[in-house]
Amino acid sequence: MIKISLPKGFKVSGMHSGMKKTKKDIGLIFSQSKCVAAGVFTQNKVKAAPVILTQQILKKNEGINAVIVNSANANCCTGKQGMIDAKKMVQITSDCLNVGMNNVCVCSTGIIGHKMDMEKIIAAIPQLVDTLSYKKEAVLDFARSILTTDKDVKIKTISVNICGKKVMIIGVCKGAGMVHPKMATMLAYILTDANIEQKALTKVLKETNEVSFNAISVDGDMSTNDTVILLANAQAGNELIKTGTKEYDEFKSGLNVVLQKLAQDIVEDGEGSTKIVTITVKGTKTKKDAEKATRVIANSQLVKTSLYGQDPNWGRIASSVGASMIAGLDPDKMEIILDGVTFYNGKRIDVPAKKKAKVYKNKYVDIVVDVKAGKEEYSMFTCDLTKRYVEINAHYTT
Amino acid sequence: MIKISLPKGFKVSGMHSGMKKTKKDIGLIFSQSKCVAAGVFTQNKVKAAPVILTQQILKKNEGINAVIVNSANANCCTGKQGMIDAKKMVQITSDCLNVGMNNVCVCSTGIIGHKMDMEKIIAAIPQLVDTLSYKKEAVLDFARSILTTDKDVKIKTISVNICGKKVMIIGVCKGAGMVHPKMATMLAYILTDANIEQKALTKVLKETNEVSFNAISVDGDMSTNDTVILLANAQAGNELIKTGTKEYDEFKSGLNVVLQKLAQDIVEDGEGSTKIVTITVKGTKTKKDAEKATRVIANSQLVKTSLYGQDPNWGRIASSVGASMIAGLDPDKMEIILDGVTFYNGKRIDVPAKKKAKVYKNKYVDIVVDVKAGKEEYSMFTCDLTKRYVEINAHYTT
Repeated sequence: MIKISLPKGFKVSGMHSGMKKTKKDIGLIFSQSKCVAAGVFTQNKVKAAPVILTQQILKKNEGINAVIVNSANANCCTGKQGMIDAKKMVQITSDCLNVGMNNVCVCSTGIIGHKMDMEKIIAAIPQLVDTLSYKKEAVLDFARSILTTDKDVKIKTISVNICGKKVMIIGVCKGAGMVHPKMATMLAYILTDANIEQKALTKVLKETNEVSFNAISVDGDMSTNDTVILLANAQAGNELIKTGTKEYDEFKSGLNVVLQKLAQDIVEDGEGSTKIVTITVKGTKTKKDAEKATRVIANSQLVKTSLYGQDPNWGRIASSVGASMIAGLDPDKMEIILDGVTFYNGKRIDVPAKKKAKVYKNKYVDIVVDVKAGKEEYSMFTCDLTKRYVEINAHYTT
Repeated sequence: MIKISLPKGFKVSGMHSGMKKTKKDIGLIFSQSKCVAAGVFTQNKVKAAPVILTQQILKKNEGINAVIVNSANANCCTGKQGMIDAKKMVQITSDCLNVGMNNVCVCSTGIIGHKMDMEKIIAAIPQLVDTLSYKKEAVLDFARSILTTDKDVKIKTISVNICGKKVMIIGVCKGAGMVHPKMATMLAYILTDANIEQKALTKVLKETNEVSFNAISVDGDMSTNDTVILLANAQAGNELIKTGTKEYDEFKSGLNVVLQKLAQDIVEDGEGSTKIVTITVKGTKTKKDAEKATRVIANSQLVKTSLYGQDPNWGRIASSVGASMIAGLDPDKMEIILDGVTFYNGKRIDVPAKKKAKVYKNKYVDIVVDVKAGKEEYSMFTCDLTKRYVEINAHYTT
């Protein structure tokens, strides 16, 4: 049972427009009072039209009232028509809500390179506006409307006490194809009734995103459509949160809980995955080195298949660390610990069969590599590579 | 039927020592007259002991008479004992052949982190020496002895006319796990009776390796054991081949044919693969950009699974190119051509169903991306990602 409640002043809706066969495929977020907003977007050079447009709108900094999101079609590689369609989505939404065009963000996820079915979208938007609600069922409708290959909705709420005022945060996201994180589309919407200044909001999203969504992704978020939007409408009535204060830290902890949970949900929903894996590389000279080595392990098909096979093949991990080309690596000093059991420590450890039999057997797996060359470390989440993943992705579309 | 004949003055052998259950697992190359030698090795920071030792031996530049190779055990992450064992293999081989320890190279491939079964190896080497032969069956024995997950031997011979003299080149290699090329171990032995100076030999191996084995690999050869060794024993009696001459170019063309064929054989034998894919990115500002984009496409699990599913999902290719972050990329100019059919040219092309049905259907697939930002290009070979790959690698070992 997911605990669901929207922060004050927010309403959402989600429905089936007809782009998908039967499932919900379009959703709306609305706050009557303008929100301070921050966003994190894909670094991919091929950006979908709605990504480019939303970045432009956020830059104008006129406050955000709404976000219109569709699944089923990414509106990417759609040329000039794609931008016309994205703008049309913003325009109709702003018209129906009676807010400005610079107060509405737009997101799309789904297949690349197909013209948007604007007829269905145009017909749906007024209905989305009519069904806006703060109720749990509406949140579930919205959460469902943004899904693609996800098995289930991903929602996390938390309340934080800021100087005696209860501040609510809710996060809703989609994303499942994280086995090869570079390519996965991830959308996340974080809504809060906190009263927080722009500078603090931008900073807190950047910082928490780094250790959550970015820690399940390679080289930043590299799909064409990845978007994280954080909206704060100040309805909680707390004193303005500024950077460098106790209140900032409190808000950040709360936000961190939400983002961490959603990031783990995405990994857990990794296409066909059977294992949730935390990979930590420690003892490196720099943080960057730790991250580099962690990402090479997390992206090794050979490591990922051995996790699926429940085979603690530490040699593939050693080889990945070597391939990451980090500074100061001495194989004769390195230690590799799988689910708490040391398999290699300068040399192979003869692990008793009984102990070995328990490694990689649980759903949650823990891989630690200690390079013993310094004091930095980095962790990330990933999942295994399974036959089911190949099945899902061999025939996804076209 | 593979055409097999050894260049003059070379003998080889291969046998079952007992490290593998029944298959051949140790082999020997021998030339009575000392060879000029060149090598290309893995860039991985975790290098197997035999790689380090062979690099040291080649540096001494005292000429090479023999190479001893075992499969079943990579002798990697084996600490000081690993180096002792590699040296022992060289020492016993040199003793049995009555040549110097600096005239013998050693290679290993197989599982990482296990102590070598030296008893079996020590017993096998004299038998390998006794069975050395220039005959076809011996070449097949040697080729079999170096295999791990390969489906079959990989051998290519060619003869080149250098100033009226017939020069022979044979290449024998192993390597199959090229679906994720960073991690695949590849061993290749190229033997020739050419008379060629050291400088020319080193240069010609570097140049031909770049467009063959390196074009099926990511970021150089990143397994712990990758080794390519080229030996020339001058028995053909041709005039000394030097760099910058017509003879150099002739020898290079011949060598290129051998290496290209072996590289393609490795891709064709990719674990569980059903497709052989040539990926070309052209129209980039720099060669490096072309290579970068090609490698991102070649390593995308999503592209590889769509190849397996025979689904011409060009959107995943577009997204990969964007993720490669190359300079001057404009999605509105880019063209994507799959098996000769343009699917995207600034915008999606509506390909007739009949035409589309033929794409990705043959064993040999051709992916071309034209970035239209410059004049450089790069090609590489890869294969698809299949359920069989996951099966093979989920339970390979330990």
